[in-house]
Amino acid sequence: MLEQLKQQVLEANLMLPKYGLVTFTWGNVSGIDREHGLVVIKPSGVPYEELSKDDLVVVDLQGNKVEGRLNPSSDTPTHLALYHAFPNIGAVVHTHSTWATSWAQSGQSIPALGTTHGDYFYGEIPCTRKMMTGEIQTNYELETGNVIIETFADLDEMQMPGVLVHSHAPFCWGKDAIEAVHNAVVLEEVAEIAHHTMTLNRTASPMDQVLLDKHFLRKHGAQAYYGQR
Amino acid sequence: MLEQLKQQVLEANLMLPKYGLVTFTWGNVSGIDREHGLVVIKPSGVPYEELSKDDLVVVDLQGNKVEGRLNPSSDTPTHLALYHAFPNIGAVVHTHSTWATSWAQSGQSIPALGTTHGDYFYGEIPCTRKMMTGEIQTNYELETGNVIIETFADLDEMQMPGVLVHSHAPFCWGKDAIEAVHNAVVLEEVAEIAHHTMTLNRTASPMDQVLLDKHFLRKHGAQAYYGQR
Amino acid sequence: MLEQLKQQVLEANLMLPKYGLVTFTWGNVSGIDREHGLVVIKPSGVPYEELSKDDLVVVDLQGNKVEGRLNPSSDTPTHLALYHAFPNIGAVVHTHSTWATSWAQSGQSIPALGTTHGDYFYGEIPCTRKMMTGEIQTNYELETGNVIIETFADLDEMQMPGVLVHSHAPFCWGKDAIEAVHNAVVLEEVAEIAHHTMTLNRTASPMDQVLLDKHFLRKHGAQAYYGQR
Amino acid sequence: MLEQLKQQVLEANLMLPKYGLVTFTWGNVSGIDREHGLVVIKPSGVPYEELSKDDLVVVDLQGNKVEGRLNPSSDTPTHLALYHAFPNIGAVVHTHSTWATSWAQSGQSIPALGTTHGDYFYGEIPCTRKMMTGEIQTNYELETGNVIIETFADLDEMQMPGVLVHSHAPFCWGKDAIEAVHNAVVLEEVAEIAHHTMTLNRTASPMDQVLLDKHFLRKHGAQAYYGQR
Repeated sequence: MLEQLKQQVLEANLMLPKYGLVTFTWGNVSGIDREHGLVVIKPSGVPYEELSKDDLVVVDLQGNKVEGRLNPSSDTPTHLALYHAFPNIGAVVHTHSTWATSWAQSGQSIPALGTTHGDYFYGEIPCTRKMMTGEIQTNYELETGNVIIETFADLDEMQMPGVLVHSHAPFCWGKDAIEAVHNAVVLEEVAEIAHHTMTLNRTASPMDQVLLDKHFLRKHGAQAYYGQR
Repeated sequence: MLEQLKQQVLEANLMLPKYGLVTFTWGNVSGIDREHGLVVIKPSGVPYEELSKDDLVVVDLQGNKVEGRLNPSSDTPTHLALYHAFPNIGAVVHTHSTWATSWAQSGQSIPALGTTHGDYFYGEIPCTRKMMTGEIQTNYELETGNVIIETFADLDEMQMPGVLVHSHAPFCWGKDAIEAVHNAVVLEEVAEIAHHTMTLNRTASPMDQVLLDKHFLRKHGAQAYYGQR
Repeated sequence: MLEQLKQQVLEANLMLPKYGLVTFTWGNVSGIDREHGLVVIKPSGVPYEELSKDDLVVVDLQGNKVEGRLNPSSDTPTHLALYHAFPNIGAVVHTHSTWATSWAQSGQSIPALGTTHGDYFYGEIPCTRKMMTGEIQTNYELETGNVIIETFADLDEMQMPGVLVHSHAPFCWGKDAIEAVHNAVVLEEVAEIAHHTMTLNRTASPMDQVLLDKHFLRKHGAQAYYGQR
Repeated sequence: MLEQLKQQVLEANLMLPKYGLVTFTWGNVSGIDREHGLVVIKPSGVPYEELSKDDLVVVDLQGNKVEGRLNPSSDTPTHLALYHAFPNIGAVVHTHSTWATSWAQSGQSIPALGTTHGDYFYGEIPCTRKMMTGEIQTNYELETGNVIIETFADLDEMQMPGVLVHSHAPFCWGKDAIEAVHNAVVLEEVAEIAHHTMTLNRTASPMDQVLLDKHFLRKHGAQAYYGQR
């Protein structure tokens, strides 16, 4: 079942080591079939070099395993929470990529310092609040999703396709698994450039809003004129 | 038409991923045929691994497409502005390379801190002023070229083959497309070394002018004695 | 003798250059056969690209060579001290990996700043005290082991599989040679992310204890639910 | 002539791009035949990927070309000055490697912060004084050698096989060309680790002298016990 989605989720998972976003088995990508309410996700703890399409696990939106020999990623409840809350996303990716994780550990959102950022993320990339004891001790992975959703109360997830979970690492998403990983690669690049900017100039200020509007909107939305259409 | 120039522009574009200057489709190189007033440039948003000579677009100096199936880079008006203002350059390259972009985001020019810098750039590599609202909202890419040109009012573009656009990223140029990319590679290396120098020693001062003269002039100009001649 | 252990120790040694943890001949991995009280270790100063199973040296727990043409690693007495003190470890690895060595040179333990750290190391990764003159001048390599053991007086080495030796570099261990190197790779990654976190935010605080408990214990111990079991 | 020395100098030059020490044509290695007073050196400005044994240039100790179609490296007078002053060295290497050059640009010597450093360099790696106007304007490359030699007035070049030239970059040496490049690789690694140490802890102090003695002397000199002998 869902052979086409599985193929895409497999390819997207294999992009993680290719783009240097993961070490060992860290990280995972899922994709959703909205029509059937089913999610294809990486199994927990399987090395990428051994990963095949048949290892992928299918779960429903309540987290019940529908197909697969292996346990799904332990982060599955986080993915499912995001699919419930963000109805237009088609895929979720989680990594511990080096630079983005540094920002998450610092507890700081990544300010929009330049056009590289503004081409993909429409404003500062938010860092969640710290999770509370009860959230960590009970249904931790679900509550990780919930703290992300809380952070997006006043944000449009389609204009801000990523987040830093405090003391943890980034999650990204997109309309499909390839785009979600694409956003994760960009987030890592943006996080690195922002780090170097801040270590050069502690008082560097965010880019002007009008420049951010220009760059985000020339690539996204009705007036976009970047690329081939 | 312009088969030889297209071949060189293709090769120069493919040097960008080879030297680690671009992620995905970011960045672009163009080259000009001064005799015919025609510019060959990368199409917008095409991945480098799929790029062929036939994908390149030919435009005239007013930006009219003369040949090509695809849209030219959205940065084409910036390239054209530079060709108009700098009559001796033969090629332009734009990247969001990590370290140079960090300096652009910090809003700081790169001081000439050592001979690696002085071998290629005759003085500090300038960062433009911020662009103004009207410049961003109307003819943004053309105005990006104009703010570069304004920055070079008292600079010789043949002795300073690159610039940082504030809150954005670098542009470089050269007598042909290979040299322009060569300069972009050097700019990235110089930007990285300058970052590390400043994080080691916040009060590091620029190299002596006489040392800068020595290094730049032993490689460039009538008295050059570096290399095989 | 010990052909299976030698094979694993060889593979583990070859992982060091593969994961970028060593330059030239730096670093070494050993593994122990607890039943026979014999240790297989890399010979001193042999390049990895030339290393074969037959080059490995077998010593007993008193450091007597039992088999092998070559001299064992000069760090052998450190390895043996750890095998004596930590009865449940099966392998030891020593590297001068870049980021972990930076922390060792700074004389600082690596605080547990996030879940990447907490998935493998249950608390801050300790840096030993400086070694004293007598310890350095007499039986230096043995005393290096002793200062590590002293540092673990109140620590459980099975929950903290690595240490920084002050002004020197890291040692890691694990139940077998592959796991020990795995831990060395993670230590290097954790050390890098922690460096970037601290340069972004000098007052970054350690992760909450409850989050550390959650992450360490979901991968380790009786209640673990990460991976395939 | 000097076919064996040429072969070694060629191999040593090709190690520079292999170990990431050079960009484009930057950097050069030479080796000396002390018996005949002849030096084999890289030609100026030739890309490494095209370099062959026949491109190498032979000069005498006065800098006269004895064999070769091409111009020798423009840094040849620096190499020759070092061969005159340091009678026991057999090879010289010059690079603009990223981290070592950062230290040179900062005008700071690299303190001996840990054993990685102490295994190869017996004390802080010195940065020369700035060169004076007259030295830069007349016989610049020769005077570059002279300022290095001045820096070593109270240093033993066999225990300190490298130097940073202020506002410029490193030079290293060794008993032969392979060892000289080996030392350049180690210098770059040591420079990187020292940078990260200082950005972690601005007040990090040098390693204890007794630890430095231990590490340097266990690898070098009569009492050495590292490696296979």
